[in-house]
Amino acid sequence: MIARIATLLFLLIGACSYAGNDNEASKDANENQAAKDVNGYEVSKGAYDYEALKEKYYADHPGKGKYTDLWEPIPIQQYWNPVSFYEPPNTVEGSFTAEECIACHQTTSPGWVHAWSDSSHANLDEIRNLDEGDPRFYKKAKLETIEKELQSRGVLAADEQLESVSCIDCHAGVGKTSMDHQTELKLPDRAMCGACHVQEFAEAESEKEQKWPQGQWPDGHPSHAMDWKANVETAIWAGMPQREVAQGCDMCHYQQNKCDGCHTRHTFSAAEARKPEACATCHNGVDHNEFENYMLSKHGVIYETMGKDNWNFEVQLKDHLTEGEYTAPTCATCHFEYKGEFSHNLVRKVRWGFNPTPEIADNLDHPWFEERKQAWVASCAQCHSQRFAKAWLDTADKGTIQGLEVEQEAKEIVQKLYDDGLMVGQKTNRPAPPAPAEDAPGDFYGLFWAKGNNPSFSGRTHAEMWEHDLIKHYKGLFHVNPGGFTYSEGWARLMRRYTEIQDRNTQVREMAELKEKFEELSK
Amino acid sequence: MIARIATLLFLLIGACSYAGNDNEASKDANENQAAKDVNGYEVSKGAYDYEALKEKYYADHPGKGKYTDLWEPIPIQQYWNPVSFYEPPNTVEGSFTAEECIACHQTTSPGWVHAWSDSSHANLDEIRNLDEGDPRFYKKAKLETIEKELQSRGVLAADEQLESVSCIDCHAGVGKTSMDHQTELKLPDRAMCGACHVQEFAEAESEKEQKWPQGQWPDGHPSHAMDWKANVETAIWAGMPQREVAQGCDMCHYQQNKCDGCHTRHTFSAAEARKPEACATCHNGVDHNEFENYMLSKHGVIYETMGKDNWNFEVQLKDHLTEGEYTAPTCATCHFEYKGEFSHNLVRKVRWGFNPTPEIADNLDHPWFEERKQAWVASCAQCHSQRFAKAWLDTADKGTIQGLEVEQEAKEIVQKLYDDGLMVGQKTNRPAPPAPAEDAPGDFYGLFWAKGNNPSFSGRTHAEMWEHDLIKHYKGLFHVNPGGFTYSEGWARLMRRYTEIQDRNTQVREMAELKEKFEELSK
Amino acid sequence: MIARIATLLFLLIGACSYAGNDNEASKDANENQAAKDVNGYEVSKGAYDYEALKEKYYADHPGKGKYTDLWEPIPIQQYWNPVSFYEPPNTVEGSFTAEECIACHQTTSPGWVHAWSDSSHANLDEIRNLDEGDPRFYKKAKLETIEKELQSRGVLAADEQLESVSCIDCHAGVGKTSMDHQTELKLPDRAMCGACHVQEFAEAESEKEQKWPQGQWPDGHPSHAMDWKANVETAIWAGMPQREVAQGCDMCHYQQNKCDGCHTRHTFSAAEARKPEACATCHNGVDHNEFENYMLSKHGVIYETMGKDNWNFEVQLKDHLTEGEYTAPTCATCHFEYKGEFSHNLVRKVRWGFNPTPEIADNLDHPWFEERKQAWVASCAQCHSQRFAKAWLDTADKGTIQGLEVEQEAKEIVQKLYDDGLMVGQKTNRPAPPAPAEDAPGDFYGLFWAKGNNPSFSGRTHAEMWEHDLIKHYKGLFHVNPGGFTYSEGWARLMRRYTEIQDRNTQVREMAELKEKFEELSK
Repeated sequence: MIARIATLLFLLIGACSYAGNDNEASKDANENQAAKDVNGYEVSKGAYDYEALKEKYYADHPGKGKYTDLWEPIPIQQYWNPVSFYEPPNTVEGSFTAEECIACHQTTSPGWVHAWSDSSHANLDEIRNLDEGDPRFYKKAKLETIEKELQSRGVLAADEQLESVSCIDCHAGVGKTSMDHQTELKLPDRAMCGACHVQEFAEAESEKEQKWPQGQWPDGHPSHAMDWKANVETAIWAGMPQREVAQGCDMCHYQQNKCDGCHTRHTFSAAEARKPEACATCHNGVDHNEFENYMLSKHGVIYETMGKDNWNFEVQLKDHLTEGEYTAPTCATCHFEYKGEFSHNLVRKVRWGFNPTPEIADNLDHPWFEERKQAWVASCAQCHSQRFAKAWLDTADKGTIQGLEVEQEAKEIVQKLYDDGLMVGQKTNRPAPPAPAEDAPGDFYGLFWAKGNNPSFSGRTHAEMWEHDLIKHYKGLFHVNPGGFTYSEGWARLMRRYTEIQDRNTQVREMAELKEKFEELSK
Repeated sequence: MIARIATLLFLLIGACSYAGNDNEASKDANENQAAKDVNGYEVSKGAYDYEALKEKYYADHPGKGKYTDLWEPIPIQQYWNPVSFYEPPNTVEGSFTAEECIACHQTTSPGWVHAWSDSSHANLDEIRNLDEGDPRFYKKAKLETIEKELQSRGVLAADEQLESVSCIDCHAGVGKTSMDHQTELKLPDRAMCGACHVQEFAEAESEKEQKWPQGQWPDGHPSHAMDWKANVETAIWAGMPQREVAQGCDMCHYQQNKCDGCHTRHTFSAAEARKPEACATCHNGVDHNEFENYMLSKHGVIYETMGKDNWNFEVQLKDHLTEGEYTAPTCATCHFEYKGEFSHNLVRKVRWGFNPTPEIADNLDHPWFEERKQAWVASCAQCHSQRFAKAWLDTADKGTIQGLEVEQEAKEIVQKLYDDGLMVGQKTNRPAPPAPAEDAPGDFYGLFWAKGNNPSFSGRTHAEMWEHDLIKHYKGLFHVNPGGFTYSEGWARLMRRYTEIQDRNTQVREMAELKEKFEELSK
Repeated sequence: MIARIATLLFLLIGACSYAGNDNEASKDANENQAAKDVNGYEVSKGAYDYEALKEKYYADHPGKGKYTDLWEPIPIQQYWNPVSFYEPPNTVEGSFTAEECIACHQTTSPGWVHAWSDSSHANLDEIRNLDEGDPRFYKKAKLETIEKELQSRGVLAADEQLESVSCIDCHAGVGKTSMDHQTELKLPDRAMCGACHVQEFAEAESEKEQKWPQGQWPDGHPSHAMDWKANVETAIWAGMPQREVAQGCDMCHYQQNKCDGCHTRHTFSAAEARKPEACATCHNGVDHNEFENYMLSKHGVIYETMGKDNWNFEVQLKDHLTEGEYTAPTCATCHFEYKGEFSHNLVRKVRWGFNPTPEIADNLDHPWFEERKQAWVASCAQCHSQRFAKAWLDTADKGTIQGLEVEQEAKEIVQKLYDDGLMVGQKTNRPAPPAPAEDAPGDFYGLFWAKGNNPSFSGRTHAEMWEHDLIKHYKGLFHVNPGGFTYSEGWARLMRRYTEIQDRNTQVREMAELKEKFEELSK
């Protein structure tokens, strides 16, 4: 009996320490306690240092980025990157109160007003009066924390409450009472939302602290906090003449600029962002089909069949299994979580990043990667045995490497074709890509730009291997969607591309041989 | 202060007149007032002229169309085009009342009876007793209007009410009390539904009034009201020997014939048709992926996360933002709307139509196109600023043209290959397509018919460019789905096809050159 | 009048006997009556013979299958096939009661406990106290039947009731009160679930009785009951060196081993499995896109727009049209049904099976196929006229054959290329596939393995024709998704592949001719 109790105790302690979720940590996770250090982000005692965060945010912001001379923003881009490009419209003269904004926009754009008027922002008293049983009860404490923050910064007077969060608060500045439409109107950026939501701002910005141990990616990449920089500093994005197509990339790569990618204006709902579909617009398709993989996995199926109508998405993520009644994870429950805590830093468990490369594959036993794998095991162990979780993650790692090997073999074939000058049209009709892109086989630019025989068929095919199929293969494995890494996407597609490249390689070399023989005979 | 009030007034007036939604228009939109002129459709004072509408409907109907000698309907087609092909079954003898229909079909096909018995058609008294607060309250007035219409046409006696809308009303004629199963049974067509729903019939038929200013499309095309004609007068549809495959096209191209494409029998729900999925069966896939684009756009994501369970789809479209509580558009809210009114004419804002062509691209500044663009701006301005709306529509126009340019360049290459006789197998193994299709490179027929080397690889690839990828590119842009016109569909696919065509062009020309040199050497 | 009544009577009798759903049959379908013969499965009077079923289940189980020497299971596979590979973890010592299991796992893996605690298994008293009006009322009788069964087998004492179905019941044995974690812990297999759910076990196992009249498939194939055998006895699955990719196939091909493919642990919900999404993880994608076809068909659209929130998925399948209020079918309503009865044998109406072949096409008029077609007509006639149902099934059969003809023509071309030694690289760089696979053109192995020029481009393309596009074509037809067999998948893709194969055929033969001429000239 004593042995058995000892075992139980061991298990309980083991499980707890494994999850890094001890009592201290739990206390830290308390949402009422604003003061904390988020992944190295320095915050002052008692409160986040909003001004320092804001200063750093703007200092880090790349604006047009390093290729600034190569492109000019088109009008729509002021909405994707208001930090750098937004100008208030010059069609409306005068200074207005929030009531006047609403009165007029009720007619000119009623959808805005309607979405806002049902939001928490428009109904702060409803938040203040929530019962403890209400799943949104946590918002009451959050509101108090926000108000205390604003008071400590002098935005609100001591003991002053926010009346509502209305047009002017977000489009000119918290606490302002009127706004000149032509000179003061702003499109809210991360820092504007962060003026109240300072904890979430700090958490989200802390993604920039990501550092890869062998320099696989530049500091802070890939992340939401640096996604605009990643966008504008991509060679073909900056160089392609079709600016209206290029700006399509901005439409997801703007999380660095704004918060409404997940919390759509003007409802700004937390519940919305907790649902998997909220991630779908950006996380789908040929080079990162996370949404499709999730939805076709058992996890997604449970969401669809059992969760959509029954789980309570108003509860905080940390309570999803208990008060939320979730019986499967959503995107947010796995990707916001790290060692038992939930935050807006989504990259703390990232291992393979955007795409599998040898530089990652060869270092998976490094402690940086190994610790993150253990953090994943702890996440999965919410609902699975640790042994199962580890077996799956090992399987997914090895399966990913198997895909990588095929892609790397194809890459060598394509590189050799290029080095031998044997790509179709390589010597006769291969214009250079637009600067700053530089000619190369299988390069990223070939997915978004083509002229004459650049890219070649084999180069383009290899680009699809590493940028589409290998990524889908890896995403299929890690999101546990069997068809996603066996027959529909991933492996079977890699086999197809490999076949096409081998086929083309043999064809062009036979043709070259024949031509050579012919030249000799013709002499 | 006076300046500010003046500004406000200006804005209010501007917004109202911009939307074309002034008080007069609002009154016109009143659903109780049946008399109106729908896009040139002549209607009598006080009521629509149902008999004239019906006569025109049948007169316009193409039956088997102009290729009538080339094909014969197969049995299933009587269900897609009852106007031309339906024959009552000869297995049941006798004449029956609705009660007898129901008694028997309750056993032979209970699903019909069950769907109908829950419908408004089976429960007119419930409609008559709706409270003003009920979202379906508008149906009460609609029912009264319908009954007045039927009374004025003598179908109902003065002051007579409809008891219910039951089997015989739709399958033999409104108000009939019995039906001979072998001789009188009809499958309801548009005119049959229009016997009561005359306003919707008139609106839907008014799509035929569409006239393109530079003749880009024949009158009335593309539209739901002419989709059967478009179907049977497509050369490869009429000519392909696989009739069971060909009839698959009918399964969407039957809106000209029937109303249950959107309001599925035997529920005939309006709420169903207001949901985006109702459009999915026809508006998805390789050559018009509207559904996918919508669902992955922010609009669709809001529908999925916030709307599906919360918005009230029983309210009329015109009240979707207010009583319906929509916070994002659905298919219907944008495509049924025109200058603030909602109707069953869905083509009044069509600009690029089915597919982008130079004939459209070159005329976008013509007032016909420009006015429609302004109508779109007004639609978007329900929830966006006019400046944003215009910036987006400009972006989408230019992005579409950028795609078109790539496709046109590829088209020239393919045409030149054909003119030079250099398509693979062109001189040795290129059978003619079945009449009435005629041999051509990159033609539509190559998507549905192939024999020997017709179509060639390059021709088929070009057909996919203009008929799949360019359309997806354009639909991705206009439905604001970033992946739909950047990396997953659209632009990146156009680049792939362009690469394939350039590659093939270089290959076959090199081969031809080698052959020629060889022939010379062999002489 | 007499004639009319006679007609009605005729119709009623005809319809009933057609559906095979007469009163006797109805009585048989009564779920309270456990004793019955399921498709030849011998069951004892008064109860199923669980011990015999279990013995046969294990006797039939292939374990590692006939290629056992070629592969070794990796750790994750113990979870897909616990019958053969599961080992209890050695990390926990001691013997525990269910209460102790729960106490510990509440901390180590709370998701399990939470899912289970909301399930019927954890709340048997709630089942016992259900009101007759509750849609789950049928579970009360089912529970009584199960308990009687267990009593008759001596698992429960006479009149003893189950307290709950808890950890130990499923992970060690029904009725056990404690379990040694290191030696007794099992992962439940079909037979374990069958210990209580003996009727469902017998029904599911009866899929093995499937016998094809002309030997088109081996006995019992294709079916859920033999899917593990089908998996491990597939040559390329056993031979491919990438075991982590190969195990992905297991993740669906494990229904022979476990029941949680449809009733996800630890909720084990019947309602879940009645929803179409429950089938999605396995029945989607390139070689069996049933889910996509269903969702885009009218059936799926009605589910999405009218059903998802309104139908009652707690009711038994047999009551779906009545108490369930379904107005369209789901996967389960068609595939669980056979002649008016619903069971866990899903193959009783299978005709074309996994993929269309000439051996099936040429025998469709054989009574085996014809009777199954009539069973389908009866299913469809729940909501459609028999004439419509027959017209559709005829259309689908003929359309499928039209697709098959194209694939067969392409097959001949590819076979001839192989026989002539003309596949690209065939004589210079075509390594043998890994044993037990044997070299062949267009073989299945080429979808999952590639090296050098094996498979060739033309062979791989043909493999995609028969294994992807033809199957999608057929599935699109039978699931009534027009785009699925016209332009998006199916037919139009078959045309594309055919074009690619014809193109390659002409190219390589021209090249061979040129080489030959050149060799002659060089002599």
